[in-house]
Amino acid sequence: MSAYPTDSTHAPDALSWVASANAPDSDFPLQNLPYGRWRRPGETAWHLGVAIGDQVLDLAEAGLLAHADMNRLMAAPLAERRGLRLALFEGLRECSPQQAAWARALHPVAGLELGVPCEIGDYTDFYASIHHATTVGRQFRPEQPLLPNYSWVPIGYHGRASSIVASGQPVRRPVGQTRPPEGQSQPRFGPSARLDYELELGLFVGSPNALGEAVDLAQAETHLFGVTLFNDWSARDLQAWEYQPLGPFLAKNFASTVSPWVVTLEALAPFRAPLQRPDNQPAPLPYLSSADNQQQGALDIVLEVWLQTAAMRAAGHAGDRLSTSNAADAFWTPAQLLTHHTVNGCNLRSGDLLGTGTLSGPAPEQGGSLLELSAGGKQPLQLSNGEQRSFLEDGDTVILRGFCQRPGWRRIGLGECRGTVLPARTPR
Amino acid sequence: MSAYPTDSTHAPDALSWVASANAPDSDFPLQNLPYGRWRRPGETAWHLGVAIGDQVLDLAEAGLLAHADMNRLMAAPLAERRGLRLALFEGLRECSPQQAAWARALHPVAGLELGVPCEIGDYTDFYASIHHATTVGRQFRPEQPLLPNYSWVPIGYHGRASSIVASGQPVRRPVGQTRPPEGQSQPRFGPSARLDYELELGLFVGSPNALGEAVDLAQAETHLFGVTLFNDWSARDLQAWEYQPLGPFLAKNFASTVSPWVVTLEALAPFRAPLQRPDNQPAPLPYLSSADNQQQGALDIVLEVWLQTAAMRAAGHAGDRLSTSNAADAFWTPAQLLTHHTVNGCNLRSGDLLGTGTLSGPAPEQGGSLLELSAGGKQPLQLSNGEQRSFLEDGDTVILRGFCQRPGWRRIGLGECRGTVLPARTPR
Repeated sequence: MSAYPTDSTHAPDALSWVASANAPDSDFPLQNLPYGRWRRPGETAWHLGVAIGDQVLDLAEAGLLAHADMNRLMAAPLAERRGLRLALFEGLRECSPQQAAWARALHPVAGLELGVPCEIGDYTDFYASIHHATTVGRQFRPEQPLLPNYSWVPIGYHGRASSIVASGQPVRRPVGQTRPPEGQSQPRFGPSARLDYELELGLFVGSPNALGEAVDLAQAETHLFGVTLFNDWSARDLQAWEYQPLGPFLAKNFASTVSPWVVTLEALAPFRAPLQRPDNQPAPLPYLSSADNQQQGALDIVLEVWLQTAAMRAAGHAGDRLSTSNAADAFWTPAQLLTHHTVNGCNLRSGDLLGTGTLSGPAPEQGGSLLELSAGGKQPLQLSNGEQRSFLEDGDTVILRGFCQRPGWRRIGLGECRGTVLPARTPR
Repeated sequence: MSAYPTDSTHAPDALSWVASANAPDSDFPLQNLPYGRWRRPGETAWHLGVAIGDQVLDLAEAGLLAHADMNRLMAAPLAERRGLRLALFEGLRECSPQQAAWARALHPVAGLELGVPCEIGDYTDFYASIHHATTVGRQFRPEQPLLPNYSWVPIGYHGRASSIVASGQPVRRPVGQTRPPEGQSQPRFGPSARLDYELELGLFVGSPNALGEAVDLAQAETHLFGVTLFNDWSARDLQAWEYQPLGPFLAKNFASTVSPWVVTLEALAPFRAPLQRPDNQPAPLPYLSSADNQQQGALDIVLEVWLQTAAMRAAGHAGDRLSTSNAADAFWTPAQLLTHHTVNGCNLRSGDLLGTGTLSGPAPEQGGSLLELSAGGKQPLQLSNGEQRSFLEDGDTVILRGFCQRPGWRRIGLGECRGTVLPARTPR
């Protein structure tokens, strides 16, 4: 059974006294209650808040928390986190006796700065989509797109925590070495010409595990706090030249963008899905295997990538949707990723971030990166305004969106994860 | 010119009123003054201290610092750090007027707990020894030991910060997947049978750089605070199975051990060395190239690995020296590593750790890992007490040592970095 079953806080007919939360297309209805950090212009310290409609409720002003430390909130025992969710649900519900008091703790999100949700100690990026791994693997290794370990190992590597930025922050095009021109030995050096996005989910760790202690699969979800959107910007030309034998480095660590609102696993309880495994793939090893994980370990989250070019922005055009995929098509579940990460005794701390890796769907048009959608740059995408893209150009804004939608349940949104490409700095 | 030239604090004839610092073989004479964190049994907060002989001077008790935050000390401007070094040197020097007051701030190191030197935000591991890369590459890829990018790119990847432990902490043998037996497809699962150490230097970042801002090679050393010993424990069998295509992960992140005393680049000023590049290697690209770096960018630090098995310990035997190498044989200098890390705009924070990668010398017996010394396990090492080792066994203690020694200068030691292997936890 999932560590986060549905309960009264998922009742689809419950409405909030915050009117904007009741719009059917709101990302943040009463049943969502995602956590984030915000501040007013000029403030240096962060507040902790919960998104409700187009408002944020300050947890301290509402008398719900005596601190503003998201990592501490994430580390709280499951029972305490459940209690907080219930208190928020009841207090924000129509006819709540808290309405008068809490209305003063409510602030319109517009005009506030939303930050990276917590202090991120370590950031790990996985490679959980077999569709992404196969398509990309075919470009790098046509003779063997999927390496033999992929079927067994939730492949992952460590990423850079310092350069994770909040949604809305611009991202500067990186400079670096790329493969030497044909017939030459000296690499090129300059701005990346193959800048890309990667559509991912970010999984935030809740309860930590001690160094040396593995987390069993059955317990794994109790160590996961919640989910965000995550854009793992990638410079494909830097990556192709540097990545052997130790993996990506400067191709990734110039920036990654995270969305501000952490949607808890509790809010996602109605949207669990069975794990989809292609028929030709073996069952996981016992430490990564359970009936519960097989039947409801995946998350049914619709994911979208939108691109707004500078020309679109100037014309008041909101952008093109480049792709749609679903997190339930991943080859490994969040619980499997966490359990694998700790099987050797590696310690995860509250606030640590696990990226799922690019979440591409099975169809070619469901690729979660331009590398996939443009076939490695060979087939440029035709945009609705007549422009083309093989990779990102300066001024392009990439917007990730995600939401859960099922008959009988309120829509639960992840909000958006947005970043605009700035031109490369001229090397001195 | 080096950012850290020699000055009065390197005067080889200067003695300390702390008698143990004046022994010719002391790692911590008056000219060293390395920083670390210590506490008494039962204390939870760390003190900041400087090692002098077999004592530690508490920086707060001596009136030199009003805080105990090593990251803040590391972030201080170069002029401030120089001022602190000069004050320590003068105050600990023979006949200093501070002797009476500071004697009360002096504590014997024996009996104190020495910690990880600071809060480590991000940890990057490089691959800076061409000798290590060639020997190991030959085992993994006999047809192409050194990949074409090695000559140009200071290869690096991100490691795990959460599992970096202080010298003296035991290290539990990791459990995980390894390559399937010949003719089978299902991987093995269990304790690593090829557990290894890696002899590295740890380089701690001092002044940070902002996201998006590259650090020029000429400025790189002003962003480096100092140096420790670093053991990047590695499970070779886990590594061989998991490392493609994204690099090492569970094979490394179960533990890394760092020595407690950060020897500043100022203390190392008399031990600079020219960069050694094999004749068949090209000159670095311009952003990684300068005459200063070529002539004095390297560090002349003698490095040793010692092994004390459980049987040796029971017999009162201090252990065997397995190898000796020198940090000056690295293919890239610390300044080159730092500049490369930031060329794409990646931000380094005060207290971030850069591992050099295994520092093997050019001769086969100078390998900085058992993987090299035992030819991938094929030629077990014969130990002085009759035991043999291909890889580490439970109860083995690995001790890294490092020191600088040149005629006309006082010996500057790095102390030691020590860890003992515990048996694997039995999977439930």
